[in-house]
Amino acid sequence: MPKGKFIVIEGLEGAGKSSAIALIKSAIEHAGHQVVSTREPGGTPMAEAIRECVKKDWQDEQVTTEAELLLMYAARAQLVANVIKPALNSGCWVLADRHDMSSRAYQGGGRQVPDSMIEPLREITLHGFHPDLTLYLDVEPEVGLARARGRGELDRIEQADISFFHRTREKYLRLCADDSNAVVINAMQDMDKVQQDIVSAFARFMGQQ
Amino acid sequence: MPKGKFIVIEGLEGAGKSSAIALIKSAIEHAGHQVVSTREPGGTPMAEAIRECVKKDWQDEQVTTEAELLLMYAARAQLVANVIKPALNSGCWVLADRHDMSSRAYQGGGRQVPDSMIEPLREITLHGFHPDLTLYLDVEPEVGLARARGRGELDRIEQADISFFHRTREKYLRLCADDSNAVVINAMQDMDKVQQDIVSAFARFMGQQ
Repeated sequence: MPKGKFIVIEGLEGAGKSSAIALIKSAIEHAGHQVVSTREPGGTPMAEAIRECVKKDWQDEQVTTEAELLLMYAARAQLVANVIKPALNSGCWVLADRHDMSSRAYQGGGRQVPDSMIEPLREITLHGFHPDLTLYLDVEPEVGLARARGRGELDRIEQADISFFHRTREKYLRLCADDSNAVVINAMQDMDKVQQDIVSAFARFMGQQ
Repeated sequence: MPKGKFIVIEGLEGAGKSSAIALIKSAIEHAGHQVVSTREPGGTPMAEAIRECVKKDWQDEQVTTEAELLLMYAARAQLVANVIKPALNSGCWVLADRHDMSSRAYQGGGRQVPDSMIEPLREITLHGFHPDLTLYLDVEPEVGLARARGRGELDRIEQADISFFHRTREKYLRLCADDSNAVVINAMQDMDKVQQDIVSAFARFMGQQ
């Protein structure tokens, strides 16, 4: 049994993941644990190279839904085996900027990839491994994308149609409803209230340990 | 229905794939068809970037069996969608240096990845698409590797244990036995005899069209 806990922050672009991560990181450290931070796709040299493949604009080459999905899971396999599991086994806590729920929401929801395609990849890659706590920061796509645009250029995935992000959000909400380790945070509230809700959710989680 | 034919050359390192490809290419052109040549993994800008990820020595980072397999199929998805199918649909013939049988033989046989892991990836990526003719050049691993070593440094996969290549060859032979579109060529014979067998196999294939 791993001794550390695996905590994942999920959400659309502009949902406020970075602020939430900083907040949770302090809270974990305050509780006396060491924190290893990850982001997906990426987090190892090979997984970062895969991330480049996924994020890059390949011009005339159509990026197939299948390749995008396979690359996401390839990067995840590297990160879980080389970073996340060793850290948890050594007693560190792992704080992740995105994990498997992103693939299920973006590819499964946004790109409408059927579960029959995603589930075998989850099985192959994760063998049932899952977060102890997922905080999903919920924003309407219009709100999140307006915030993201304020930060600079959007990448290939972030340039998708607005309906793509609506389907992604809907899938996120459905996945959270089915996942007893997931908490939905209303990230459209005032910053102070969002932070308060994040801190409360984390405190409840700690109380259950 | 595609108008062109999809022909794949398979075999261990040093089996003589390059010579066979040159021979078949001439034969196809002699029959009056245009030839598009591919190699796997690779063959599109994105697939070549994925090839780099797979082939590179990542030093301290363990390359998981899962990631290797997922990357192979990601590259294949790109190549099939962007090169192979468009070429076949335009009436060209496609001559491939390795295709799906390589993954099944090297990962399934050599690395002993169970079929339960490979079959879903084949299903997701290929949806039943398969070669019209596969020529498998059969050599004992000791013979092939000695030839390959003569050509220069071996890459990460080619540096595997000799028993890996024995398992790979065994799987190749079993896959060919189950595939009515596959022909086994004894590539340990004299070069002249090997070439003669390749030409005969191709002539038989043409006779059936």
